[in-house]
Amino acid sequence: MPENENNRLKRGQAKLQEVDAEAATNVMLGLTDVAPDIATYIEEFAFGDIYSRSGLDLKQREMITVTSLLTQGDTAAQLAVHINGCLNVGLTKQEVVESFIQCLPYVGFPKVLNAVAVAKRVFASRK
Amino acid sequence: MPENENNRLKRGQAKLQEVDAEAATNVMLGLTDVAPDIATYIEEFAFGDIYSRSGLDLKQREMITVTSLLTQGDTAAQLAVHINGCLNVGLTKQEVVESFIQCLPYVGFPKVLNAVAVAKRVFASRK
Amino acid sequence: MPENENNRLKRGQAKLQEVDAEAATNVMLGLTDVAPDIATYIEEFAFGDIYSRSGLDLKQREMITVTSLLTQGDTAAQLAVHINGCLNVGLTKQEVVESFIQCLPYVGFPKVLNAVAVAKRVFASRK
Amino acid sequence: MPENENNRLKRGQAKLQEVDAEAATNVMLGLTDVAPDIATYIEEFAFGDIYSRSGLDLKQREMITVTSLLTQGDTAAQLAVHINGCLNVGLTKQEVVESFIQCLPYVGFPKVLNAVAVAKRVFASRK
Amino acid sequence: MPENENNRLKRGQAKLQEVDAEAATNVMLGLTDVAPDIATYIEEFAFGDIYSRSGLDLKQREMITVTSLLTQGDTAAQLAVHINGCLNVGLTKQEVVESFIQCLPYVGFPKVLNAVAVAKRVFASRK
Amino acid sequence: MPENENNRLKRGQAKLQEVDAEAATNVMLGLTDVAPDIATYIEEFAFGDIYSRSGLDLKQREMITVTSLLTQGDTAAQLAVHINGCLNVGLTKQEVVESFIQCLPYVGFPKVLNAVAVAKRVFASRK
Repeated sequence: MPENENNRLKRGQAKLQEVDAEAATNVMLGLTDVAPDIATYIEEFAFGDIYSRSGLDLKQREMITVTSLLTQGDTAAQLAVHINGCLNVGLTKQEVVESFIQCLPYVGFPKVLNAVAVAKRVFASRK
Repeated sequence: MPENENNRLKRGQAKLQEVDAEAATNVMLGLTDVAPDIATYIEEFAFGDIYSRSGLDLKQREMITVTSLLTQGDTAAQLAVHINGCLNVGLTKQEVVESFIQCLPYVGFPKVLNAVAVAKRVFASRK
Repeated sequence: MPENENNRLKRGQAKLQEVDAEAATNVMLGLTDVAPDIATYIEEFAFGDIYSRSGLDLKQREMITVTSLLTQGDTAAQLAVHINGCLNVGLTKQEVVESFIQCLPYVGFPKVLNAVAVAKRVFASRK
Repeated sequence: MPENENNRLKRGQAKLQEVDAEAATNVMLGLTDVAPDIATYIEEFAFGDIYSRSGLDLKQREMITVTSLLTQGDTAAQLAVHINGCLNVGLTKQEVVESFIQCLPYVGFPKVLNAVAVAKRVFASRK
Repeated sequence: MPENENNRLKRGQAKLQEVDAEAATNVMLGLTDVAPDIATYIEEFAFGDIYSRSGLDLKQREMITVTSLLTQGDTAAQLAVHINGCLNVGLTKQEVVESFIQCLPYVGFPKVLNAVAVAKRVFASRK
Repeated sequence: MPENENNRLKRGQAKLQEVDAEAATNVMLGLTDVAPDIATYIEEFAFGDIYSRSGLDLKQREMITVTSLLTQGDTAAQLAVHINGCLNVGLTKQEVVESFIQCLPYVGFPKVLNAVAVAKRVFASRK
């Protein structure tokens, strides 16, 4: 059944707040002047379509997200958002770090060390 | 307490069989003539040290592994091993595909399509 | 003004056919059994949202797409689709090859050679 | 007909100034003490050979360049030079941002967001 | 002192033969119909300029080259050429495999395994 | 013959100091609070197993390491450690820069420029 576009947007905005809270608002605001459509696509597609799917819970989805960001490299800003996201949805700090350690045989030490450095800053900021 | 090296090796070999079964044996055999030490490091470090850790269960570890492989690209051989590994440790085919879909906003469609193509072949081979 | 979802899908399906023709149908069919939702997202988001935008014409969009695929690596299947796409929307074979040559100072020779190899096969198949 | 090396160098230096102006001078100066030959190769090969080719105009070449830089990741310094380059050769700010948006289905949101962040700084600096 | 272009080309062709022998000829031939200029740039820039430099010997240069190819991924064709190149310039099979093992802490197992698989085929072809 | 784990650790700690000296201590300290096991794995696996191998000397190993780091991208922190490591084990500044230049045909200019920028800072810090 065809869906009204406003539903995707509203569902996405709600899901984005549920996962990424304050950090999400900052990313969206930073796009307002230069590329507001990208903010809309994040809300509609990334969160309205993908994050809202059933089949995996939010802890699994955020664990997958930080793993993909770690593996890509050059994602410090997004890792900060989503490490916070991991903690927001109920993963523990130990589970976040353990996910990074699991990547060691698959990406080597540099990318894991870079992600751990971001995690340190996020953990410190949440005290 | 310092550990005997043979324990790491034995623990790793057992864990490798638990996760990757037959596919693991093939990878190890392929290394025998040209780089047997790499096979030892896989058993001792990847499985004896990392996969044997507590903190995350094997379903989570394999989900992280296939996510990292998908994101790297050019990992069809290893994706085949670890998609089988996902199913061996109790994830469903739907959970594997859902993990790939979760990557869409973070890596785009090409890498996800490549991983899905490998999953298709693995699923067909297990019927 | 909120849009009916079926419009995005229909617009995307039409745009996908306009750019990628037969090759697109094959990609979609390959997803039917294992991940039909990904096919829907390609039609709705990649083509219904992104490719349907104004601001750049289809020649520019396909030139950008093959550049990104070349740079990522491990995208032979998608490069085949989109090199065909380049020619479908009116770029010449020389313009496609020239786009790859432009990448040389930015990615080096291996990735450019890999893309040229795919172009050779595509050009031969269109005679 | 064999060409005199000084022609490649002079042609490259002129083309580099045409595209990248002041930003180019800074990159070259930064290399003087540690790796002056790399500066020469940029002038001779990247600009004397590649950018001076016919077949694509400078707008197309810069569009391809920023696409490849965005897709690689960890290229903030070079993106700054070449987003300026895009504007110097006559692309508009909207066309630059639209090129980044076109990459979304192929690389996902993180790399596009990183490039947009650089574009924001470049646009602000040109006011 | 400005150099005659034909010198760069001739020097590069000679150096390419010295390092990559028969494999090089095949790469060049494959480019003749679709992108002959890329073959010229490989001969002039990659081999006439870079490989002909002093400061490192050919063993070091080929060791660096296969390391970079391994790390990039999706470079099986080029790895085959340059693993042969390593052996052509006097590195042993053990030194080639040892270079791959050295990469393990920096890239993880998948990329190293992919390179070892290519080395196996090259070693077998040279018996 | 099975080895006592404490031997791997001690051997690795000694090798790490030999190659990376002070920089290594800083990396290890940074891990103490958040992920001390990663520090142990670096000492045991990266240095106790891999760097302690015969077959290549430390100059070759560090040359391979900085090449892999350059090629990966987003490794400025690790490049700083290992460019220092190159100099610590007896490579000259010219040999380090020459290794980066050798990568130009294989990765293009951006990654090489990024590595050269790190080298500049390291060289200045060692005066």
